[in-house]
Amino acid sequence: MDDRPKHSCGVVAMALNSDANLSLKKGLRATQHRGQESTGIAVFYEGIKYIRGMGLVHEVLCGREFSMLKGNVGIGHVRYSTSGTSAVQNCQPMVVTTSAGELAIAHNGDIVNAEKLRKKLQADGWAFLTDTDSEIIIRILANELVEAGEPFKAIKNTMRKLDGAYSITLMIEDRIFGVRDPMGFRPLAIGSLLNGYGIASEDSAFDILRGNFIRDVAPGEIVEITSEGFRSAKLPVTANPATCMFEWVYFARPDSTIDGLEVFQARKNVGRQLAREQPAEADVVIAVPDSGRGHAVGYSEESGIKYDEGLMKNRYVERTFILPDQADREESVALKLNPIKSTVKGKRVVLVDDSIVRGTTLRKIVQMVRRAGAKEIHVRIGCPPIRAPCYYGVDMKTRDQFVATDKTVDEVAREITADTLGYTSIEGLVSALGKPQSDLCLACLTGEYPTNIPGEKMRFQQRLDIDY
Amino acid sequence: MDDRPKHSCGVVAMALNSDANLSLKKGLRATQHRGQESTGIAVFYEGIKYIRGMGLVHEVLCGREFSMLKGNVGIGHVRYSTSGTSAVQNCQPMVVTTSAGELAIAHNGDIVNAEKLRKKLQADGWAFLTDTDSEIIIRILANELVEAGEPFKAIKNTMRKLDGAYSITLMIEDRIFGVRDPMGFRPLAIGSLLNGYGIASEDSAFDILRGNFIRDVAPGEIVEITSEGFRSAKLPVTANPATCMFEWVYFARPDSTIDGLEVFQARKNVGRQLAREQPAEADVVIAVPDSGRGHAVGYSEESGIKYDEGLMKNRYVERTFILPDQADREESVALKLNPIKSTVKGKRVVLVDDSIVRGTTLRKIVQMVRRAGAKEIHVRIGCPPIRAPCYYGVDMKTRDQFVATDKTVDEVAREITADTLGYTSIEGLVSALGKPQSDLCLACLTGEYPTNIPGEKMRFQQRLDIDY
Amino acid sequence: MDDRPKHSCGVVAMALNSDANLSLKKGLRATQHRGQESTGIAVFYEGIKYIRGMGLVHEVLCGREFSMLKGNVGIGHVRYSTSGTSAVQNCQPMVVTTSAGELAIAHNGDIVNAEKLRKKLQADGWAFLTDTDSEIIIRILANELVEAGEPFKAIKNTMRKLDGAYSITLMIEDRIFGVRDPMGFRPLAIGSLLNGYGIASEDSAFDILRGNFIRDVAPGEIVEITSEGFRSAKLPVTANPATCMFEWVYFARPDSTIDGLEVFQARKNVGRQLAREQPAEADVVIAVPDSGRGHAVGYSEESGIKYDEGLMKNRYVERTFILPDQADREESVALKLNPIKSTVKGKRVVLVDDSIVRGTTLRKIVQMVRRAGAKEIHVRIGCPPIRAPCYYGVDMKTRDQFVATDKTVDEVAREITADTLGYTSIEGLVSALGKPQSDLCLACLTGEYPTNIPGEKMRFQQRLDIDY
Amino acid sequence: MDDRPKHSCGVVAMALNSDANLSLKKGLRATQHRGQESTGIAVFYEGIKYIRGMGLVHEVLCGREFSMLKGNVGIGHVRYSTSGTSAVQNCQPMVVTTSAGELAIAHNGDIVNAEKLRKKLQADGWAFLTDTDSEIIIRILANELVEAGEPFKAIKNTMRKLDGAYSITLMIEDRIFGVRDPMGFRPLAIGSLLNGYGIASEDSAFDILRGNFIRDVAPGEIVEITSEGFRSAKLPVTANPATCMFEWVYFARPDSTIDGLEVFQARKNVGRQLAREQPAEADVVIAVPDSGRGHAVGYSEESGIKYDEGLMKNRYVERTFILPDQADREESVALKLNPIKSTVKGKRVVLVDDSIVRGTTLRKIVQMVRRAGAKEIHVRIGCPPIRAPCYYGVDMKTRDQFVATDKTVDEVAREITADTLGYTSIEGLVSALGKPQSDLCLACLTGEYPTNIPGEKMRFQQRLDIDY
Repeated sequence: MDDRPKHSCGVVAMALNSDANLSLKKGLRATQHRGQESTGIAVFYEGIKYIRGMGLVHEVLCGREFSMLKGNVGIGHVRYSTSGTSAVQNCQPMVVTTSAGELAIAHNGDIVNAEKLRKKLQADGWAFLTDTDSEIIIRILANELVEAGEPFKAIKNTMRKLDGAYSITLMIEDRIFGVRDPMGFRPLAIGSLLNGYGIASEDSAFDILRGNFIRDVAPGEIVEITSEGFRSAKLPVTANPATCMFEWVYFARPDSTIDGLEVFQARKNVGRQLAREQPAEADVVIAVPDSGRGHAVGYSEESGIKYDEGLMKNRYVERTFILPDQADREESVALKLNPIKSTVKGKRVVLVDDSIVRGTTLRKIVQMVRRAGAKEIHVRIGCPPIRAPCYYGVDMKTRDQFVATDKTVDEVAREITADTLGYTSIEGLVSALGKPQSDLCLACLTGEYPTNIPGEKMRFQQRLDIDY
Repeated sequence: MDDRPKHSCGVVAMALNSDANLSLKKGLRATQHRGQESTGIAVFYEGIKYIRGMGLVHEVLCGREFSMLKGNVGIGHVRYSTSGTSAVQNCQPMVVTTSAGELAIAHNGDIVNAEKLRKKLQADGWAFLTDTDSEIIIRILANELVEAGEPFKAIKNTMRKLDGAYSITLMIEDRIFGVRDPMGFRPLAIGSLLNGYGIASEDSAFDILRGNFIRDVAPGEIVEITSEGFRSAKLPVTANPATCMFEWVYFARPDSTIDGLEVFQARKNVGRQLAREQPAEADVVIAVPDSGRGHAVGYSEESGIKYDEGLMKNRYVERTFILPDQADREESVALKLNPIKSTVKGKRVVLVDDSIVRGTTLRKIVQMVRRAGAKEIHVRIGCPPIRAPCYYGVDMKTRDQFVATDKTVDEVAREITADTLGYTSIEGLVSALGKPQSDLCLACLTGEYPTNIPGEKMRFQQRLDIDY
Repeated sequence: MDDRPKHSCGVVAMALNSDANLSLKKGLRATQHRGQESTGIAVFYEGIKYIRGMGLVHEVLCGREFSMLKGNVGIGHVRYSTSGTSAVQNCQPMVVTTSAGELAIAHNGDIVNAEKLRKKLQADGWAFLTDTDSEIIIRILANELVEAGEPFKAIKNTMRKLDGAYSITLMIEDRIFGVRDPMGFRPLAIGSLLNGYGIASEDSAFDILRGNFIRDVAPGEIVEITSEGFRSAKLPVTANPATCMFEWVYFARPDSTIDGLEVFQARKNVGRQLAREQPAEADVVIAVPDSGRGHAVGYSEESGIKYDEGLMKNRYVERTFILPDQADREESVALKLNPIKSTVKGKRVVLVDDSIVRGTTLRKIVQMVRRAGAKEIHVRIGCPPIRAPCYYGVDMKTRDQFVATDKTVDEVAREITADTLGYTSIEGLVSALGKPQSDLCLACLTGEYPTNIPGEKMRFQQRLDIDY
Repeated sequence: MDDRPKHSCGVVAMALNSDANLSLKKGLRATQHRGQESTGIAVFYEGIKYIRGMGLVHEVLCGREFSMLKGNVGIGHVRYSTSGTSAVQNCQPMVVTTSAGELAIAHNGDIVNAEKLRKKLQADGWAFLTDTDSEIIIRILANELVEAGEPFKAIKNTMRKLDGAYSITLMIEDRIFGVRDPMGFRPLAIGSLLNGYGIASEDSAFDILRGNFIRDVAPGEIVEITSEGFRSAKLPVTANPATCMFEWVYFARPDSTIDGLEVFQARKNVGRQLAREQPAEADVVIAVPDSGRGHAVGYSEESGIKYDEGLMKNRYVERTFILPDQADREESVALKLNPIKSTVKGKRVVLVDDSIVRGTTLRKIVQMVRRAGAKEIHVRIGCPPIRAPCYYGVDMKTRDQFVATDKTVDEVAREITADTLGYTSIEGLVSALGKPQSDLCLACLTGEYPTNIPGEKMRFQQRLDIDY
């Protein structure tokens, strides 16, 4: 939905026995849901070559230049910008030349101490060509590489300076690495492919290549892949993981499996928990397509209320960017969704969605379903109320955008014009995900952050191995 | 799916109290599923002005030229070409100047006697600037207008010369008409809008404008709308209607209602009938998204086997046109769909789709679901086997494209690698749609055509009031 | 210069022993000065195929579609629109299908009785798809072809209905024709090429193809070319020719030869005549580049005053279309031209240009040269004062645009801030061109028209063989 | 001509009392001849904002984004790449952020020790995001700024590390600087504008803004401009200047004045000298347009042989990039130039051009003029034979491209099929330019270089104040 946070980025990397360009493209297309603003790949063949640009994967990776791109190893990136202005020079992978050769980086996440690092390095006389976190990472890494003379050590030294969320693919000359931050905020997976190995934000990127998921990259782990296999090193991790619960609830593809839990399965679990916590007397359960489907199916199963399709999604409006002054938002929602009258007319409807951020879109959906003849509308939401900003790579940076910030559940229900409203509880969510609460990042729900953010509360004291 | 027929076109028309450009655009966006190749609108303000071009609605109807387009009345068109080469000069609406003023036409359908008419008129010294049916219609109409001096009479005289499928919106100077052929092959609906009246291929186009469906244009009917209301005339209809069953089964939006029957409701009815005719011992019912959903929900309801999401649809690959030599088709399907493993693994699966044309895509889907761990796959298809070409506006012109043409159901099952395969019967489909069989066009199923097609069998003798 | 009339169009045609696409492109590139708005070619290979579009020749005729275009015969067109709105559907060649096969036309000129013809045909029930003269010509021709069954007769019959200026290339199935109106307003030349024959607006189009000019198409002549040769027929011409003097003075390329007179030679002759009629006491002769160069060189030769370059032309601003509200016109001129100070500083300058229409640009040039230090500026103009509109294919349709309309020469001199101003006289121009005055169209100078234009004076009574 | 070297770049800078965007654009348009590949400007308003892209000035600096760009000070750049690959990320101005604020640079020239500097800095752990000289300069400058805390000192320290040719405009926060290397290879001029001050590669950029040339930036000088005036500092210059003679002979606009000598005047001087050194018995002098005109006019004046236009230049082919395999080069020349037959037929022709690099184009021109009927063709060339590569910003990097490298004048004459060939002597050129030979860079003529180039001869020993 329009008022839903967009995720920052998706990354891939491959080391194959043959040209990697087409496989990188396919992997990125399967990762497109993580970023639709820009696309890029970098490959190595007598030096690093790259193609980057604003646009979807098939818009950027096409034409003669792409099809002629040689090189058996490479990395790739799709972006929805959370840091750095949205211009073409910020497209990734970012490539630099150093005395240790050429380096390329593709980055998903947010570096919490980016500004601090930038200021410190500028005081040493450094000049930055972009305002991205990626430039900070790669230039520190270049510096460490000259110092250490060896990638694993240099990457470790770099990680010790970075605070925040980062799932990274790296190319150092023709060597390929995947790196996941010590708290594992964002996913990163290793897979075997028909003719080599790969790393990707989500394992569904391997399916399109007829590859197989091997395992997740662990928090704090550095993995190097070759066409023959992979090897790994790890920072001594001193803190609990803090994997973003929103990856399962909304961001990731339903067919991906993150840290052992399939996303669609997770959503059905949450939907079942929601049905137990927030039952409703109703005739039919409908989902807000597409991200509410898993939650709705789970709710239907647990409650015994039949599942039906109540909202038609217009598949031709995905990428239309309507300027605020060109159209009122209600019509924008109406272009995307329209009620199926026979499903809701005269019925008591349970309307299930994955989460509420601003609530403006959901309000319009509720009104739309009501106009189509629903007798009662009981909104049920998989994700507990979002009340605090995210500093780890999700585009929700300020408190004032959350409808739930200062409101009771009843007030939000009135705001969105629902008869009743129910959220899954935080405990319920945690239990549905089947992970210890201490291993998840729930900061946007609790306001307690896994790392030290000036002005915010820390969830529990722990030593983070950050030097800077 | 890729091997599914694409529909020919969608049309709209509006007569309002204020500028119609934005409303026409919204109506066309809601009609986008009927044609994605080209877009156009024509409006009247001190003469007919138009904007036409290759591309989706929001790609063509944008910019300063569009936003400055004045005129309270107008017509619009989206095209997926079934006749005429696919070039920019064949974009509709087509506009001509005559001694009766300017005329514009937007046309959905196929004129069966187009070539016969063209040859006859050329023998009289006529020269045609395009190879479209639309030019034939509008130039005959122009000729009749000069003769008759009055639109309704001229339109009637034109209709008497046309054999085939046509749902048309017309602008004659500033007067707006909707015309549906005497057999009503394609839908056409009348609606009241906030500040006027409209005509559209499907009534869902009125929802986006917060308008209300009034009624279908009847077969053989001519409707004129103004901002104040509408009036109608009708050819004396001498033949049975022949509404295309595929509009309900596949083409139209699920939220549209055609000739009194909501499309999603129709699909659920068909799915229920299918469950009765073709039961299966299974653990879960899954749909091929999106057009198989209604059939699957109906199948689940009737059979009592639970419905779940088994295939994830990648919403970012809709408009990618992969050239045949650039990628093997299997990957193309895999880019669009990926199994949700938890749903199908170790399960006996009923896989429901709306119809089979070539069967190549479905075969890949079955294999994909099998690789994801399904124990048994029972394919169930809402539409009876398609075996004969369509001459009335659907892009299925030759027999050799149908997998079912020369095969038994078991042979098709083997072809698509399903454990079992079951179709709804023709009688079952007819009863699910709740219409007399004699009022439907089932030619692609039965090979018996509602009009006289050289070399094909006619379903039953009837006088068609065609002069030519 | 910006305030100079732009010519209507250029045409080419070729009949070769091998594919004609590349030769047509080269011929059109050499003809680009006659029209920069749109480009198109049509060739015959199992039917007529064409490529047309807005843009320069190399922008439209490129890519795979162009390079794959087969066919040994074809016609081409570049347009600067004088009739018809400036949209893509009015691009030429125009192609129609008739009972006599496919026809294509490329047209340079203006049909004076176009509206009369259009109204008459509409009254017969004809509908026109464009508002171009070309559609009128080709549809009358199609009609005549059906009647006559033979191209030469049909073309003659068509010519008898057309009043005005037309130099046309035609393709009737795979036969190629060139037609020049009975008064020969616009040029048309025949050439032999390395592997066939060609027709073009100007013979310089043959040079680029290493071909040779054979002769002009005569007024009223129809020429058919094949790869082996050409044959000709002629309307009995009953009127004097009326070749446009402006073709030599401004429109045509300096290296072209029209009706036996090379354009650059003609301009030098005019410049010499100008020096005799309008001498000046001065130190240097400079030209307004590029069209004033020939006149200036002639003036220098005859007067003995030395020729020098006084204005630098910025070659990168040719195709920039500056919107009227974005920049004042003075800057627009200053972007294109800048004085060479050493040439004019402290000098008495003779500034020579080919013609004055509005005078606004010339005024800015005079001021610019004065600011650069010229002591005196004596403007000398090759073309006598333009005072009357053109109805034969030049974009000067109204009297109010001419600075000379109601002013004496002294008044115009003051208007353009020149110290003195002198034009060649009409008699001087005629003598410099070396043609009988009765064989030239001087209507824009004299206000006396070679054909009957309602509201304008006819130069002398003569029977024109126009039926309509 | 096609086989002529293209210059590297042009730069501008402005400090005004009002928004600078439009003035920067106009200044760059007047500078377009120095680079047609990419365009960019950077302005300061609450930080540095910029627009850069591939394309001509009016193609990149347009649209809403450009017209909304606020800021009274800014710099601009047009590029024809001589270093750095030709991609969008190498477009200038380059912008960086440092602890001393934001910096932007626009650079014309080549840094001879760029690779040495790059390697040295990489050994210190620096990573470079581009392969341009500009990044080296600006990052050293950033480093020096942090050290020195003051722009003039930092710029001086930076200059001490750079060896080679650089005319630079700089923006340090909202302060604007122009810098010219100590040998003054490339021009740089200061001007007063209607509401401020400007710096530009050539003073003709001020004319379009109705400004006035003040003086050249001296070799080794740093100039800071504000809207009120300018101030200056200078490196103690220890070496002779080495201004590129090719700026007068070919690169610069004829209406520009460099180091006190107007370019067109310089060319006429060279032409006169050429006539004295290399007389010819002939009937007419013609130029290869446009860069040969000045030389030809001078030749005509001195020799008394009349000047005429003998080659027509097609102004519509300037920017067509014909791929080598798509067309033979002869046609490419023929598209651009065509003889005016009346000027050359039966005549003894002196054909004057500014210089010969490969000679391939000139050979085709000579053949073309001969085919047009010239009896004798005496080629005369303003610039002495070019025999050695340029390391200071001209795209002539290898010896094998020069036709004159291993040939006598007679051999070159035969190569280009001329009857006779004559060049101005080096001494004659120097005397025509009126500068001491020791103050010019003649390296491409003499093979003796003003700076130390490994493998090349140095013209005379002198201490260059380069630290690195």
